Amino acid sequence: MFDCIIIGTGPAGLSAALNLKKYNKDFVWFGTKRLSDKVIKAEMITNYPGLPNVSGPDLFKAFDASREAAGLEITEKTVTNVMKNGNTFMVLADNDIYEAKSLILCIGVMNAKLLEGEDRLLGRGLSYCATCDGQFYRDKKIAVITNDAKYEHEVEYLADLAAEVIYLPTFKDSVISRENVTFNSGVPAALEGESKVEKLVLKNGEVLEVDGVFALRNAIVPTKLFPQLEVDGGHVVVDRGCRTNLEGCFAAGDCTGLPYQYTKAVGEGNVAALNCITWLAEQKLKENV
Amino acid sequence: MFDCIIIGTGPAGLSAALNLKKYNKDFVWFGTKRLSDKVIKAEMITNYPGLPNVSGPDLFKAFDASREAAGLEITEKTVTNVMKNGNTFMVLADNDIYEAKSLILCIGVMNAKLLEGEDRLLGRGLSYCATCDGQFYRDKKIAVITNDAKYEHEVEYLADLAAEVIYLPTFKDSVISRENVTFNSGVPAALEGESKVEKLVLKNGEVLEVDGVFALRNAIVPTKLFPQLEVDGGHVVVDRGCRTNLEGCFAAGDCTGLPYQYTKAVGEGNVAALNCITWLAEQKLKENV
Repeated sequence: MFDCIIIGTGPAGLSAALNLKKYNKDFVWFGTKRLSDKVIKAEMITNYPGLPNVSGPDLFKAFDASREAAGLEITEKTVTNVMKNGNTFMVLADNDIYEAKSLILCIGVMNAKLLEGEDRLLGRGLSYCATCDGQFYRDKKIAVITNDAKYEHEVEYLADLAAEVIYLPTFKDSVISRENVTFNSGVPAALEGESKVEKLVLKNGEVLEVDGVFALRNAIVPTKLFPQLEVDGGHVVVDRGCRTNLEGCFAAGDCTGLPYQYTKAVGEGNVAALNCITWLAEQKLKENV
Repeated sequence: MFDCIIIGTGPAGLSAALNLKKYNKDFVWFGTKRLSDKVIKAEMITNYPGLPNVSGPDLFKAFDASREAAGLEITEKTVTNVMKNGNTFMVLADNDIYEAKSLILCIGVMNAKLLEGEDRLLGRGLSYCATCDGQFYRDKKIAVITNDAKYEHEVEYLADLAAEVIYLPTFKDSVISRENVTFNSGVPAALEGESKVEKLVLKNGEVLEVDGVFALRNAIVPTKLFPQLEVDGGHVVVDRGCRTNLEGCFAAGDCTGLPYQYTKAVGEGNVAALNCITWLAEQKLKENV
């Protein structure tokens, strides 16, 4: 049982991790070693105090130097589900279950619009996680939607299993080159199927008949990840202390709402972590009474 | 008539100023060119993302580089009074009156009753922040002064690190119970030491020989500055958008409450400034209707 689990390695997650580490908490930090694609791809940041006119790649380097100096390790697994079970948070990451007393969500904000039918067909032929569900599509025909090059190794993995992959990246310069992978530059619009996914419909009207669809995207819709969580307009509702509606669960960064700013995100990561530490201490005192 | 006046040049004030400048607002920024004594005197900051293990003086240099890169000028005047007059904020600074449409308060936390020697020895064995400086007292003997039970988890943290803690809370019902923590009900009066803290002297004449002293206190008087402002326990009351009870007046940093952290402060300065800019735009739209 961990003290805490942090989901997300963007600026908010990094800030939270630095503080948990400082207070010697036993925690797991899920995300990518690239920390944040949004940061890496930024052109120039002029309002991050202490790093004047810093480029995205240089801000990434500075953040990664902080991570390294603090001896912080990232667990590169995809979190697909969170539950609260009594006083414990259960986190499903690449099909492994992790348990913790507290949780800090730094899951970013979903820019992509959900597909029509996405709500209804999630878990019925639509998956957010190649590692978790790839095995169910051995020798099948699937479509894979991604908005980030960091998912390409997951696309490779899916191509190992599936008979045929229709690949729809939203970015250029894909490095995938496989006989069973066909690129499609169309824009996904809707999922169709009675009890499970049968078709992916594109904006241009093209209809792809598939056995399954993988949507590998940055940021997660909070209620998809954690249905008990209170949200408002797609953002996790938090108070000034970054506390969510669920005791022991905190949230920070873009997922809590505007402004989407690195400086705001690190500030909230700091607040969330310190209030989490206080909360853990209070729980311990209660146990000892 | 300025668009905005920022009071305070600590991390929150700097962050707010960077954003107002970015959006080309016409504003005055009151404070000291030393930016923040608390920053300059800090021993080592390990949780400011992007600047790993940075000393106080180096953090000051980094902040000042941001200020300079943005071409920000500080008006070194002491603000003694603020009033809201209709839709205008009137600020009295060194007996000159400045008027603005909006206001961002980054006035920090003021320590009401200072110990004798406190000014001289801050950062030299005297610290206001367990998270910031606790690690420098590993296996040492320290005294901890607090006036609020909410700091008790920080006392626990210090007790984890230090060999011996003399604990002087001004409140009853402490829940601390540790072998290496000795309670002392005396009233702190003075700090003594040549180049660093060596002794904490109590009102009853008792002299405690220590390697360091932590003073974890609430003490702020924003209502002395601005009587119309809503406060709670000495802190300016703000919502998640850093808005105070007075329309057009925002607050950020230590003055809005715990945690007293540079990272939290820059985050709030960012949020306060961006919401101030939005508010100014809304006012302009109303005028044009």
